[in-house]
Amino acid sequence: MVDGVRVVSGDSGFLEDIRGKDFVFVLVLGTTDTSLIPGITIAGASPELTHYTPPADAEYLVLGRCRVIPGIPVTPDGIPTPAVITRAAVKLAGAPVLVVDAGLRVKPLIPYVDVGGRPGGDIRSGSAVPLEVVEEVFYRSKLLGEQLAKLGRVIVVGESIPAGTTTSLAVLVGLGYDAWNRVSSASPINPHGLKRRVVEEALRNAKLRSDMSPLELVSRIGDPIMPAITGIVIGAFEADRDSKIILAGGTQMASIVALLKEIKREVLGNTAIGTTRWIVEDRQSDLKGLVEEIDPSVPVYAVNLDFSRAPYPGLRKYEEGYVKEGVGAGGACLIALASGRVGLEELHNAIYEEYSRLVNAK
Amino acid sequence: MVDGVRVVSGDSGFLEDIRGKDFVFVLVLGTTDTSLIPGITIAGASPELTHYTPPADAEYLVLGRCRVIPGIPVTPDGIPTPAVITRAAVKLAGAPVLVVDAGLRVKPLIPYVDVGGRPGGDIRSGSAVPLEVVEEVFYRSKLLGEQLAKLGRVIVVGESIPAGTTTSLAVLVGLGYDAWNRVSSASPINPHGLKRRVVEEALRNAKLRSDMSPLELVSRIGDPIMPAITGIVIGAFEADRDSKIILAGGTQMASIVALLKEIKREVLGNTAIGTTRWIVEDRQSDLKGLVEEIDPSVPVYAVNLDFSRAPYPGLRKYEEGYVKEGVGAGGACLIALASGRVGLEELHNAIYEEYSRLVNAK
Repeated sequence: MVDGVRVVSGDSGFLEDIRGKDFVFVLVLGTTDTSLIPGITIAGASPELTHYTPPADAEYLVLGRCRVIPGIPVTPDGIPTPAVITRAAVKLAGAPVLVVDAGLRVKPLIPYVDVGGRPGGDIRSGSAVPLEVVEEVFYRSKLLGEQLAKLGRVIVVGESIPAGTTTSLAVLVGLGYDAWNRVSSASPINPHGLKRRVVEEALRNAKLRSDMSPLELVSRIGDPIMPAITGIVIGAFEADRDSKIILAGGTQMASIVALLKEIKREVLGNTAIGTTRWIVEDRQSDLKGLVEEIDPSVPVYAVNLDFSRAPYPGLRKYEEGYVKEGVGAGGACLIALASGRVGLEELHNAIYEEYSRLVNAK
Repeated sequence: MVDGVRVVSGDSGFLEDIRGKDFVFVLVLGTTDTSLIPGITIAGASPELTHYTPPADAEYLVLGRCRVIPGIPVTPDGIPTPAVITRAAVKLAGAPVLVVDAGLRVKPLIPYVDVGGRPGGDIRSGSAVPLEVVEEVFYRSKLLGEQLAKLGRVIVVGESIPAGTTTSLAVLVGLGYDAWNRVSSASPINPHGLKRRVVEEALRNAKLRSDMSPLELVSRIGDPIMPAITGIVIGAFEADRDSKIILAGGTQMASIVALLKEIKREVLGNTAIGTTRWIVEDRQSDLKGLVEEIDPSVPVYAVNLDFSRAPYPGLRKYEEGYVKEGVGAGGACLIALASGRVGLEELHNAIYEEYSRLVNAK
């Protein structure tokens, strides 16, 4: 067991295996026009600004400040991006960060890996990303995963893509899972009804067939980070069967697990999900149930973050159901704790310090 | 001492320090319109094709085949790219490869890191790369170096930029070194006269001033890989004073050492040059003399590659003065030997096998 980490699903074997290991943190970025649908996401102060959130998150993670926007990404209520948590945690874990552009409309002004992606469209069209782009991103991301495997480190993959839970819902439903009302939201009031209407329209226009490949399904109703993350995981596994992968995120990672199961099921034996307590305690979503339906052997670990006594109102809002997860925050905290370098209290203090630096820099 | 490695300049202390260590191989790519000057370079079957050589080299290194061109990069006489050597060697060293686009006209169809670069112009204009681009590439490459340092591996930096010895000559002369007739060439007959005329025209138009910053000098008469490589080295050093860097290349790396001396001299204490026997035995160039003039403490190591008994004519041509170095071939061989996993004979055999695979794939 690792202090501060809860085994939500599966067993603790994976967690024992990664104790004291070295890590590399990969942040996969993308945008879609699905995030422009009013009310679908609060990952940005306005729908238009959601296209700036992923590059700004990446800049904040690496630099401690943003370049593509003034300030940092916030919700319409001004609650800060979870990149604040991720930055504090990856520093504690001593993990290098690699940023991947899987398809961004706005590029970050820091080094990033190009994998041939393109921004996704609005999934309501039923043709979200051209199939040749999905296949190329998958191919190149496998190459990236192969090189990452040679580092001999645990690979942690986080994401930043606004409206990513909606595209995940579409893919889960498209793959046959009853995922309605079970994906999470950065908002305390999950817009399940709106997400359902969007996904139903997407499914109507996508004209899915039962003989479609998983990548073809992604090209109709998914988003560009899906082929990138699945590619990295599969490439790493093919290069080294001992590669360990942590999918750092909430219910978006359930769709990744579902896709991995379709494309190359064996990799799930080396894969875990790392997330936050806010995700697994959320009553408006069901990460645990979704993963158990897809493959009950995939462990889900949650870090017991608790900001109820945080000295900043922006962080205390997390306890009211805002944000919950993103930019791989939960997985980053997991590796900080698993590294054995810090405990839960030091982790909280480091996050508060990071937030304090941010507030004082304004 | 490491079997098969010659200490050409400086001492063997650095070499002892990196024995048995882990490595990461970074290949920095760029193009300039200087390579379009007829006769200046043989890094491509024709001047126009030189713009395809760096992305094709990177693809070959990672994939074992090229995507942007059919076949692989060759000289006008059909002699293959040194990427063949590099690929065999990095595999033996077990080193992951990271490809960096510092400014390419043609992008590789594999994952690569974007650092905000742009292809360089013809240095004869005296305004090779806009200063804001040079500064941005330097800034972002420092960020990349910081993350690389966290891997705790020796960082090996190779390059592929046609006509790179000419832009290096310009920068060395611009910094006050008497480098005329001392940079190398991939051709057995080094076009020193043409290079001198090109650089003299560049210097006339550049209107250098003694108070110019090194980056401003690069922007007038250099190329885009210069701010990228110096940035990576300095960023790694600033993040971890124990970072060890091997500049993998021939006389092009002399200009990098000269720039590092101007920008942040302390980093040279952690830096070595790794190259091939063909470079240091070349009578038409003078890597040893150049580096000793810049900073005699920077070690130069040469790997005793000898293709005189190679089973392939394309490789035996290296013994007649063709190619000599490139794509970090010498540095890659250095780390294969320093890793302790193989000796010189196994290294040669692995290169021959790689070449055989290539020939038989045609």
